[in-house]
Amino acid sequence: MELLDKLKWRYAAKAMNGETVAEDKIERILEAARLAPTSSGLQPFEIIVVKNQDIKEKIRPVAWNQSVVTECSHLLVFAAWDTYTADRINYMFDLTNEIRGFKNEGWENYRQQLLKSYPQKDAEENFQHAAKQAYIGFSQALIAAAFEGVDATPMEGFDPVAVDKILGLREKGLRSAVLLPLGYRQEDEDWLVNLEKVRKPMKDFVTVLN
Amino acid sequence: MELLDKLKWRYAAKAMNGETVAEDKIERILEAARLAPTSSGLQPFEIIVVKNQDIKEKIRPVAWNQSVVTECSHLLVFAAWDTYTADRINYMFDLTNEIRGFKNEGWENYRQQLLKSYPQKDAEENFQHAAKQAYIGFSQALIAAAFEGVDATPMEGFDPVAVDKILGLREKGLRSAVLLPLGYRQEDEDWLVNLEKVRKPMKDFVTVLN
Repeated sequence: MELLDKLKWRYAAKAMNGETVAEDKIERILEAARLAPTSSGLQPFEIIVVKNQDIKEKIRPVAWNQSVVTECSHLLVFAAWDTYTADRINYMFDLTNEIRGFKNEGWENYRQQLLKSYPQKDAEENFQHAAKQAYIGFSQALIAAAFEGVDATPMEGFDPVAVDKILGLREKGLRSAVLLPLGYRQEDEDWLVNLEKVRKPMKDFVTVLN
Repeated sequence: MELLDKLKWRYAAKAMNGETVAEDKIERILEAARLAPTSSGLQPFEIIVVKNQDIKEKIRPVAWNQSVVTECSHLLVFAAWDTYTADRINYMFDLTNEIRGFKNEGWENYRQQLLKSYPQKDAEENFQHAAKQAYIGFSQALIAAAFEGVDATPMEGFDPVAVDKILGLREKGLRSAVLLPLGYRQEDEDWLVNLEKVRKPMKDFVTVLN
């Protein structure tokens, strides 16, 4: 399967060469994230695409000074909803009715069920749930990058509060969940590029109940 | 890009026909999940593959009685570590040294850093972190299913405590995070199959900082 080849090709690039990734590639990577399935179809996250070098320079020191933050072409910041609100839930249900061109009783009942549930929950619990959905999109983006021959660095090593502040995310009801610098590997500076990929053997990963 | 075609093809199947998915397809889907990148490479999740029909029958009532739970061929249960322990961290660092054939000072320092951090944290916080990593694998598995022409139903609608009990997960230090029934769609019973896929427009999903 071609997908497995791409998954074996990709690795977490530890150094990039500053080369710019073509916009059509970026568009397809973002489209893969946009197509990601999410819980109840709410898509509770957004992506901030940082091309601006000054902003990358500000983020680098709060991201363990990892060089790829400034060496990358585009820095994707996956930002999840800080909570689920009635407005946000209604937006997606209204959009669904608009796109599908009809209202359905079962679907409207489901809207009411969600409206009675999420907005009453603790914001932190809701954010954690939204962040998991962001990870589905993040995973699809990183696979899409591999299909485009673009290197990427899945990155949790950053101070989310500081990144939120630099990007003004909290004011928008968003919180940074995970970063994905995109660019091209700089092989002679990258300690990881030639090391073997390490994964648990299947016997320690999967249990089959026959 | 072929990936985008697969992402458009897939949908959350709401009815399956009971047909068995060939084992070689299942193996490649599991392999995609195994290859998923995770934080510090710890792979803090496992997959329980439920083929046993009696167990599926037990899970269905605690999964909102969704029919695909029993109609599917293989029910994948993504189970995350209930916490990060020193043993679990050491296992992955030792495996890395074994596979790569050498010890590296930087890597050993990083091991110590993680050993000083995760095991001292609150178990719930650690589980939430591990569950996010499980979602990366989950996302890769569901894309792999699409590449294999296998239908899948991303499923959060279940009672994790009940599923943990049925599968004896807590005794193994695991907690169910998300389910993925795999099988083949039953078009005439599936209300979703012919409805248009709904996603936010790109303008509401992406912000570019030039």
